[in-house]
Amino acid sequence: MAILVHLPSFMAVPITALLREAAPDITVWNGREAAVADEVEAIIAWGLKPGVVPAYPNLRLVCAATAGVDKLLAAPDLPAHIPVTRIVDPGQQAGIARFVLAMALRHTRSLGLYAEQQRRGEWKRHAGRDAAQCRVGVLGLGEIGSEVARMFVAIGYPVSGWSRAAKHLPGVTDFTGDDGLDAMLAQSDILVCTLPLTPRTEGLLDRRTLSRLPRGAYLINVGRGEHVVEPDLVALIDEGHLAGAALDVFAKEPPAADDPVWNHPRIEATPHIAADPSYPLVARQCLDNLRRAREGRALLNLVDRQAGY
Amino acid sequence: MAILVHLPSFMAVPITALLREAAPDITVWNGREAAVADEVEAIIAWGLKPGVVPAYPNLRLVCAATAGVDKLLAAPDLPAHIPVTRIVDPGQQAGIARFVLAMALRHTRSLGLYAEQQRRGEWKRHAGRDAAQCRVGVLGLGEIGSEVARMFVAIGYPVSGWSRAAKHLPGVTDFTGDDGLDAMLAQSDILVCTLPLTPRTEGLLDRRTLSRLPRGAYLINVGRGEHVVEPDLVALIDEGHLAGAALDVFAKEPPAADDPVWNHPRIEATPHIAADPSYPLVARQCLDNLRRAREGRALLNLVDRQAGY
Repeated sequence: MAILVHLPSFMAVPITALLREAAPDITVWNGREAAVADEVEAIIAWGLKPGVVPAYPNLRLVCAATAGVDKLLAAPDLPAHIPVTRIVDPGQQAGIARFVLAMALRHTRSLGLYAEQQRRGEWKRHAGRDAAQCRVGVLGLGEIGSEVARMFVAIGYPVSGWSRAAKHLPGVTDFTGDDGLDAMLAQSDILVCTLPLTPRTEGLLDRRTLSRLPRGAYLINVGRGEHVVEPDLVALIDEGHLAGAALDVFAKEPPAADDPVWNHPRIEATPHIAADPSYPLVARQCLDNLRRAREGRALLNLVDRQAGY
Repeated sequence: MAILVHLPSFMAVPITALLREAAPDITVWNGREAAVADEVEAIIAWGLKPGVVPAYPNLRLVCAATAGVDKLLAAPDLPAHIPVTRIVDPGQQAGIARFVLAMALRHTRSLGLYAEQQRRGEWKRHAGRDAAQCRVGVLGLGEIGSEVARMFVAIGYPVSGWSRAAKHLPGVTDFTGDDGLDAMLAQSDILVCTLPLTPRTEGLLDRRTLSRLPRGAYLINVGRGEHVVEPDLVALIDEGHLAGAALDVFAKEPPAADDPVWNHPRIEATPHIAADPSYPLVARQCLDNLRRAREGRALLNLVDRQAGY
């Protein structure tokens, strides 16, 4: 029996090598071409186009190579009995949180403005808001959102979090439900989206919700591009209601050449680099779950397909 | 008896108002012109040019309006019997630490490079070092350096600190003395200068010391410009030994128009904005110390004029 690595080559090459080294008894194929269909027991993937899953009759496990599984769950022909697992990587969570901090600190301290001044040879100090005046709201308090909230608390920001159920994290004010969302938005000078992409969260950040943020608020999106209705965001920045945004994810990656995010002076756009999972950890979690599946034991980091994460 | 506020007007105006409000019984003069020399009991200042101190025969206290007192102690006619106090402001310490974090995170995650790519419409991911691969060395573990070290530890960086005596801060590896300096430099991918400026620390960061940093290291200076021999720093960046620097302080502020820091692509130069002290706190500490001086009690945050801080 075998594992099929069905990933872009920059991930597939190292992960295939790590799997082969860790489990010499298991066949590992990098890509569908070489794979013997009957033998494929597990697939490691990001997304699964229609037709991929049905080609493997003995499939018993799909392992996401990432924390977000929206692209996998979008496969229309993934049978309900096939379990899907996702990556839970504390290192990746911390990396994403540090990326968010970098963008929040840059914004809070007007460091982009100072960089422009430097290019002009201008020495001018501006009254800046410090952390205590920048209330942070974190959308989603899963593994990633919790780490984002923890780090903001550690460096002195006032922090709130919105989640399905109250999380009671140290130093974090809880908000839940639809009313809680509106209440948290109204007091978030920096809004951080770490949500999973599900039918309930898609398009959540539109004109209605973004308008509830205080004037001058700043959005940091490390969830998925589809959480944000981008034309609404751009309009609210252009109208002066929002100060700007840092976007690491986009509905289409890379964004189209005429997408306004490329040239907008108040949007920092990065190519989905907040943090990658550790490849050794991806390989280890996949092998561990394959053994568990074979032995009928509970899987680690099993996705709730109804909830979507 | 009276207090003389001897500061640039952007600080003098609010601090004078705060002092008058807090202590209606004390005369407060903003600037030397209005002051009655015999009545001046305390001066709040940044620096004291020759001739200022001798003009006030009943002076009993000089309060720095800042954490660093190098410019005050440089006054040649400040009698040894006049005590000097400095500002110790936890909010300022945290603000400086967050500024350092902003610069360190921006460097670690190559966010300047991604900003350039965005301007060119280029979507390209780079293998980035994350925090665990960026060892931080903090020069000086006073109130500011300790807070810098604490925040780096909290967000997952490996942290060392260099100080006169070992500080035993949680998660921080101690280095002391000349040997300790060289040893810490050799393992600092990010070097942060938070030292006070004294005859012992002036020019400390020259070609000899900066060369000991690992190839690709990054300097963040929030101490004083005079800590760095700027031509040595620029040369080591241009030679490729150092990756760059974030400088918030300069020997001459603003730097001369032909100073290479203005246009260097690998130097982020900011106009001494890491963090200001809280003006209410400056006023409160000055009034408190003036009362203590009158009553012969121990002063708060008294400067050791031999040590220079």
